[in-house]
Amino acid sequence: MKNGLDSMVKFSLHFPHTYAQSECDKVFEGILKERESKKSGYYDLPFETNALQQAKAYIKDNGQFLDSLSYLVIIGIGGSSLGLKAIDGMLEHLPHRNALKLVFLEHTDPLHITKALQNVALHNALFIVISKSGTTIETSSLLKYVLKLYNILESRESKKHLLVITDKASPLESWAKSVEVKHFEIMPNVGGRFSILSAVGLVPLAILGFDIENLLRGAALMTQRFFERKEEHILYKALTYARQRQRIPMNVLFSYSSLFMQFNAWYVQLWGESLGKLNPMGERVGLTPIALIGSIDQHSFLQLIVQGVRDKSVTFLSLNPTHSAQPSIPNVNIEYLESTNFVNNQSFATLLHNQRIATMQTIENEGITTDCIEIMSLSEESVGILIAYFELLTSCVGNIFEINTYDQPGVEFGKARLKKLFEA
Amino acid sequence: MKNGLDSMVKFSLHFPHTYAQSECDKVFEGILKERESKKSGYYDLPFETNALQQAKAYIKDNGQFLDSLSYLVIIGIGGSSLGLKAIDGMLEHLPHRNALKLVFLEHTDPLHITKALQNVALHNALFIVISKSGTTIETSSLLKYVLKLYNILESRESKKHLLVITDKASPLESWAKSVEVKHFEIMPNVGGRFSILSAVGLVPLAILGFDIENLLRGAALMTQRFFERKEEHILYKALTYARQRQRIPMNVLFSYSSLFMQFNAWYVQLWGESLGKLNPMGERVGLTPIALIGSIDQHSFLQLIVQGVRDKSVTFLSLNPTHSAQPSIPNVNIEYLESTNFVNNQSFATLLHNQRIATMQTIENEGITTDCIEIMSLSEESVGILIAYFELLTSCVGNIFEINTYDQPGVEFGKARLKKLFEA
Repeated sequence: MKNGLDSMVKFSLHFPHTYAQSECDKVFEGILKERESKKSGYYDLPFETNALQQAKAYIKDNGQFLDSLSYLVIIGIGGSSLGLKAIDGMLEHLPHRNALKLVFLEHTDPLHITKALQNVALHNALFIVISKSGTTIETSSLLKYVLKLYNILESRESKKHLLVITDKASPLESWAKSVEVKHFEIMPNVGGRFSILSAVGLVPLAILGFDIENLLRGAALMTQRFFERKEEHILYKALTYARQRQRIPMNVLFSYSSLFMQFNAWYVQLWGESLGKLNPMGERVGLTPIALIGSIDQHSFLQLIVQGVRDKSVTFLSLNPTHSAQPSIPNVNIEYLESTNFVNNQSFATLLHNQRIATMQTIENEGITTDCIEIMSLSEESVGILIAYFELLTSCVGNIFEINTYDQPGVEFGKARLKKLFEA
Repeated sequence: MKNGLDSMVKFSLHFPHTYAQSECDKVFEGILKERESKKSGYYDLPFETNALQQAKAYIKDNGQFLDSLSYLVIIGIGGSSLGLKAIDGMLEHLPHRNALKLVFLEHTDPLHITKALQNVALHNALFIVISKSGTTIETSSLLKYVLKLYNILESRESKKHLLVITDKASPLESWAKSVEVKHFEIMPNVGGRFSILSAVGLVPLAILGFDIENLLRGAALMTQRFFERKEEHILYKALTYARQRQRIPMNVLFSYSSLFMQFNAWYVQLWGESLGKLNPMGERVGLTPIALIGSIDQHSFLQLIVQGVRDKSVTFLSLNPTHSAQPSIPNVNIEYLESTNFVNNQSFATLLHNQRIATMQTIENEGITTDCIEIMSLSEESVGILIAYFELLTSCVGNIFEINTYDQPGVEFGKARLKKLFEA
């Protein structure tokens, strides 16, 4: 089927996926209801214009100021940093990405903090604090640290170097208002790991020079097609993964390019934190995400997939090799290593592509549940498609599991203990 | 029990581990036999002096040349790069680590290759090709690429910028001899993922300024104590992990510091590739490694551990916080965020340490198989202990599984397919 989406990202399922129409309908109706109930607001983000307009207005109003900077320092953890990292990792090489160095203050690792801020000064940096509430202990501690270190609240001029992105009516928003620091709002029904297409992602991405309209356009295209029942493969995959969860509890994302390193981390959070829950019967459910990079992890994890227990499905994520004709493997003959000459004169991209195909064939041949996502051209739009795809897939599996895909109650358990440890 | 090892690394098991002496003896005897049979040579590496002396002699003879360099470029993948990355990642901050920038050419990712070599020139770089055979397609292709790009074989002088580390009598060694490039040997019975204490790790680590004698000393201490039956916790843990493999097929390493990022990757290869095998009954066995970074992944993966299916054990790896008294969280009160003030005036290291404890208590409390490794002081010696510990643990589990812990036949399956794809 020819359509705009197919020319950007190709999805193919390499496993049996015959489901009755009624089975697919049931999952679809559940998602439709979830969207309409506003249980999660993420479904609507690709079609919203608020954050988009605000980000664009901010950049327009602050062009000269932004041009004077060298660093964009993000203070945020989990859903507040992973999406941004993922997109910048995939698209950083695009010519319109500006030269701002992106620095993350995520957790409270002392050596990391010192190193990350080595060359950062108030005059050359813009700090963005991203937190739904502001009370995440890593984020608030790091905010205190930079407030003090850079004396950010000293003057109207210095305050320009700080932005806040937080939930409407959150404690952090109240603070930002009280100290007159510019802030952007997140809708409270958009959870952290589903927030990349809200101000959380759009504001920093726009500051980095990315085309956030195209990012939303891609996500909107995928979302619309899904709701028009034109991307049924998502339902098939969700049904397959959910039903075989006891026999196949792990879902590998095998991404063939270092560009996907941070996207992998985004996937791990989305999948793991969304689906590891108690269901209404009090039963523990979940699917464990495992993220690999090819070809590197062919030399690390592939053995376990091929000869270990049959408890993993594998999704291959790859880039079409026509993307990078250069560099290529020169026609050099190394004496005694003549057996490697079959790749001479080929581009490295072709080698990587063929390694992906050879590995995929090997795994398919072993009877392992395999599918493939091939990005035909890497751009904001195709990345938008990819993000919406994984979010929708996650929601579908969560729906079949009958869980709340959008909360994370288990993360709270440690918080009281932490406080007690400090009081002791 | 007081001993040198305890003051450097503390191991504690937080799960029931009562095994009959005969059960432990059986595993121990198996390992002893394996060592004596020379099935794998890794057991002896901490006590060998060949590679150590050769590395030291090379550095002594080439002091001025090495001082003139800015880049150390490693061409190698899997076991040829992961161990070096792991150790440099943990110890890079030590004052005696020199300023050489470490660059890895691992896989055939076109964008990565170009970016990695951006500032690398022949006069400012030393290239080290690491491969047991030389025929690994990524490594040979990248070797061809740099040979051509930098014209390395042009003269006696330019050849000084290339070193080869490879198996005794391998095709790559034959080539190195024929073109008169300096080479170091690996014993053929030392597999890639167990090779970090051979020339594979020692030569580049010594060039980076690390104290490789202390690295070996730490590994020797752990190995010796294990063979003197003074580290029985390794046997207990191996027995526990191996016996509950069907119920608990995943082993999480939750490392509390960004310093462990690359060590995590080393663990994933060691555990996954060693243990995912067919056993003598033709049954698929294996344990799936999952590696996390704390506190970051508390906001990503913890929910799945706490509320998802009970199919994971968790090992906490942490640094004693007395390591880094600075930076600390300033005594700043952020209006509306007063609930976060309980950490004010504490060091970030203490916060990270207490986050680890709180998370560990939460997980233990859920009845999850938990243990802890605490590094009291981070040095070559404690890293040597850590490496020997994980290698011995892997060998013990492999022994209980009755598999060959040291091969990776499943990785070969894709190689013929790859060649065919190019011939098509």
